[in-house]
Amino acid sequence: MFQINENYQKLPGSYLFSTIAKKVNAYQAANPDANIIRLGIGDVTQPIAPAIIEAMHKAVDEMGHAETFRGYAPDLGYDFLRKAIADNDYRARGCDISEDEIFVSDGAKSDSANIQELFSANSRIAVCDPVYPVYVDSNVMAGRTGSYDKEKETWSDVIYMPCTAENNFVPEFPKETPDMIYLCLPNNPTGTTLTKSQLQEWVDYANKVGAVIIYDAAYEAYISESDVAHSIYECEGARTCAIELRSFSKNAGFTGVRLGFTVVPKDLKCGEVSLNAMWARRHGTKFNGAPYIVQRAGEAVYSDAGKAQLKEQVAYYMNNAKTIKEGLAAAGYTVFGGVNAPYIWLKTPSGMTSWEFFDFLLEKANVVGTPGSGFGPSGEGYFRLTAFGNYENTVRALERIKAL
Amino acid sequence: MFQINENYQKLPGSYLFSTIAKKVNAYQAANPDANIIRLGIGDVTQPIAPAIIEAMHKAVDEMGHAETFRGYAPDLGYDFLRKAIADNDYRARGCDISEDEIFVSDGAKSDSANIQELFSANSRIAVCDPVYPVYVDSNVMAGRTGSYDKEKETWSDVIYMPCTAENNFVPEFPKETPDMIYLCLPNNPTGTTLTKSQLQEWVDYANKVGAVIIYDAAYEAYISESDVAHSIYECEGARTCAIELRSFSKNAGFTGVRLGFTVVPKDLKCGEVSLNAMWARRHGTKFNGAPYIVQRAGEAVYSDAGKAQLKEQVAYYMNNAKTIKEGLAAAGYTVFGGVNAPYIWLKTPSGMTSWEFFDFLLEKANVVGTPGSGFGPSGEGYFRLTAFGNYENTVRALERIKAL
Repeated sequence: MFQINENYQKLPGSYLFSTIAKKVNAYQAANPDANIIRLGIGDVTQPIAPAIIEAMHKAVDEMGHAETFRGYAPDLGYDFLRKAIADNDYRARGCDISEDEIFVSDGAKSDSANIQELFSANSRIAVCDPVYPVYVDSNVMAGRTGSYDKEKETWSDVIYMPCTAENNFVPEFPKETPDMIYLCLPNNPTGTTLTKSQLQEWVDYANKVGAVIIYDAAYEAYISESDVAHSIYECEGARTCAIELRSFSKNAGFTGVRLGFTVVPKDLKCGEVSLNAMWARRHGTKFNGAPYIVQRAGEAVYSDAGKAQLKEQVAYYMNNAKTIKEGLAAAGYTVFGGVNAPYIWLKTPSGMTSWEFFDFLLEKANVVGTPGSGFGPSGEGYFRLTAFGNYENTVRALERIKAL
Repeated sequence: MFQINENYQKLPGSYLFSTIAKKVNAYQAANPDANIIRLGIGDVTQPIAPAIIEAMHKAVDEMGHAETFRGYAPDLGYDFLRKAIADNDYRARGCDISEDEIFVSDGAKSDSANIQELFSANSRIAVCDPVYPVYVDSNVMAGRTGSYDKEKETWSDVIYMPCTAENNFVPEFPKETPDMIYLCLPNNPTGTTLTKSQLQEWVDYANKVGAVIIYDAAYEAYISESDVAHSIYECEGARTCAIELRSFSKNAGFTGVRLGFTVVPKDLKCGEVSLNAMWARRHGTKFNGAPYIVQRAGEAVYSDAGKAQLKEQVAYYMNNAKTIKEGLAAAGYTVFGGVNAPYIWLKTPSGMTSWEFFDFLLEKANVVGTPGSGFGPSGEGYFRLTAFGNYENTVRALERIKAL
């Protein structure tokens, strides 16, 4: 009789956002007239920019004619997109990253879940706490996390690096030496980030202890302060210790379009083995390229018109962030984030737990947020709101919260 | 110091089609005037059908307006697509498969590589030989295949089921009991298939020994004979032992559009654990949905206009198959397949090895095919040509081969 991968059985409950969706759907079904405002999942609401829509129409037309039809894409991404990425996201910032170090994918969620495959089964992972659930869950499925402590809500073999108001959301170097360090900066869920010199210390640490940093820069476009790095490759030595994950979901609204990429420098090696070659092999074997139409959409992100339109889109969301942050502060909440990221991280009031505040907000204000504890034990007592709603709804949500 | 997943180091050479692409590119660079005809990789050449193009334009427009914009798709696929699949591919054929047993993905290659994750690390896999390389390679990466014998080109822990002219390309039940049995029917690479009653025997066998059949039905649309099953769920008992992988790449030309789905029946269990729930959890954690635009394209495949247009497209390719099969036979080759599948499988002439014939055909006729040995040791001495070229090139390629 066949046997299953028992690691799946260790996962507690379902994926955080699936749980939230079920709760919200149940509430809506029971209260059909409730006008629910969703500031929970980090999903965008603004339409795709005109320059990108135009590029997709053109690509769709190409697919409809034999002379311009495209079949299987190159495994690792079309040259036109890899070049646009290398030029704009790296060379323009003085980062030494070339086209063949860029791997185009169907999104950063897949990449952040799949990247662990390159590492040995007994690797130790270190994560910030709170953290985007995919990093830990994908390692649970791979059997790297040990046993789960239901009381503490932690895994025995995961190194947690608490990020709370007490340490200004700056993780400390762990006592035990990790093999893989997941850093999401600007951070999801806290909306905070590190300065470039703080990030440089992490690069130096990783090189010293022989760890790989999995650097999730999905929110890079929201950075407003000048001493914050847009890419980890702005730091010296990152080419030998860092993999960078990037998304088009947040800077260009591609949550439903699906596109991302991962950078694996050729200098990142374990002995003689190149992780760049390993990732190329994985792409070639387990993936068949992002859609041509979507890769053309990605290219348009880097056109002059695309850049101008997306700058406006990011500004629109960051104006929401300001609205939320100032509104909550005025209502007496303690708030963090929202300056270099589209997330606001708040202390729950009156000693409520994160899930208590979730239910309270859903029932009393019909506003959906994300309980901080869903991101890890140090998220308990915090709550996340996103700036990705539309402006009118964001203002309305804040009015409701203020009136509580 | 971090350590890598050593299983990757066991993989011999690079992915088959990457190797071929490199060889062809090198030949083209050395012979810039050569007019190479590619009948190697199973990539389509006909443009996307008008009904699908129309649906994609409409979906692109929706993404450009706030009222109709779509962000993250439901993890498991949009209801409109899951319903169209359940209605057309299953209920219409009398198969008892419901919407919530269908998981929409970015393609069958990803699914066929990822599905092994649900099984324990020490599961034994059985594959037809020759076979689509992804089944074995994805299990190599997961450490299930033991050691590689360079002479025999086989893995110590893989159960091979030879499919050759001697047994009419019908695999025999293996002597050792497998946990997972990969069956691709109609078959890639041989272009042959089983009758429905032969398939029923495999379902009965799997239920008897407690194995799961991973049934790859990517070429279902090319079936022309009435005693061949379009889905494994046409067989009694398949709901307790079979997972079915389906693709839009071959029936609708989506190789560059990217869409597929996997069926995991709720009756497929290991003890009390539902594989349907496990796959749902994997999708929710490691995947973020297929693009909205592409899912609308998939829906259009099932529209009346889409069905009519795709019937013509399949007929176009099957006319190519007939051209190749009859042309090769007239030239004295021994040929198989091409009746229920768009692949022709031929015996190499004059005792050439598969790769010798590959080089011979590339250099003397400027025609690219796929060496049978690339699909497994029992593929040695065979060669695959695809019917997915355009008609004019297919005729031209056959003229060149006949003139050799």
